[in-house]
Amino acid sequence: MTRIPLTDVACSIARATDLFGDAWTALIMRDVLTGITRFEDLARDLGISRKVLAARLARLVEEDVLVREPYQRHPPRDHYRATDKGKELYPVLLALMNWGDRWYADPAGPPARVHHLACGRDTTAVPACAHCGEPLTVDNTTQLPGPGGRTGPGTHVLGPLLAARIPD
Amino acid sequence: MTRIPLTDVACSIARATDLFGDAWTALIMRDVLTGITRFEDLARDLGISRKVLAARLARLVEEDVLVREPYQRHPPRDHYRATDKGKELYPVLLALMNWGDRWYADPAGPPARVHHLACGRDTTAVPACAHCGEPLTVDNTTQLPGPGGRTGPGTHVLGPLLAARIPD
Repeated sequence: MTRIPLTDVACSIARATDLFGDAWTALIMRDVLTGITRFEDLARDLGISRKVLAARLARLVEEDVLVREPYQRHPPRDHYRATDKGKELYPVLLALMNWGDRWYADPAGPPARVHHLACGRDTTAVPACAHCGEPLTVDNTTQLPGPGGRTGPGTHVLGPLLAARIPD
Repeated sequence: MTRIPLTDVACSIARATDLFGDAWTALIMRDVLTGITRFEDLARDLGISRKVLAARLARLVEEDVLVREPYQRHPPRDHYRATDKGKELYPVLLALMNWGDRWYADPAGPPARVHHLACGRDTTAVPACAHCGEPLTVDNTTQLPGPGGRTGPGTHVLGPLLAARIPD
């Protein structure tokens, strides 16, 4: 299906999606960040084959998203821990969860709640501007070319479109 | 690869990823929300086959993420517009972009910048608590069971784990 490697596209969404845009990978990260870190537990939770799970975990370790570490010596057993790079996928998971809750939740309500320990309330994540703190939306933002931007596969039309934009 | 339908998993991340966790779908949404809305432009920008593109667009229309509308009558031509459901995928794109920028950007810098029209600055999205406005992280949040939560495929271990948690 993919005719050009997504990692070659001058777009951070493409590069992130190349790794993370696999349904099982998203659920593995959900589990590891929630505290399910052992191979056997991940296999049982997700109900996927050991082969598929092992391949996904190997890729995540290779990409430095997870590290594999022993948690027991006799018999030897490993578990997986998120690196900083892995922990920083949390906003992606929060955004996916929020969207799923909004548009695909059971009639009973959302399957899980995000509890903010600092303020003590169940909450949702709002994408806030790093400068002014106001919510960012499609309508109050625009995309401009960055220093690493170029026109090429995956940005043949987008590149020139962004280049033609002038900030207000 | 998928042995159980992701839409059957009692997890909003699984349900969202079922649709959105496809690399081309993420890039199609990036394009439509950035203003590339015509079939020909999408095909040229992404460099994917018309067949693959048509299938992805049809799915997005079926799921009410995009609507297809005429923009010209002679000859008849359609473009795609994001619904509210589609526009609400923007936080997912912002989170993916931010993560890709952090961990996979060119040495030159990020390919694109998000410009916040309201405050006039280039920015990034911070996942902020809907109540107190502070940034949400893996370490300052915990997942608790929601009303639609259950133990089953995709949550065999997660369900009981969340159920055993008591909020502070």
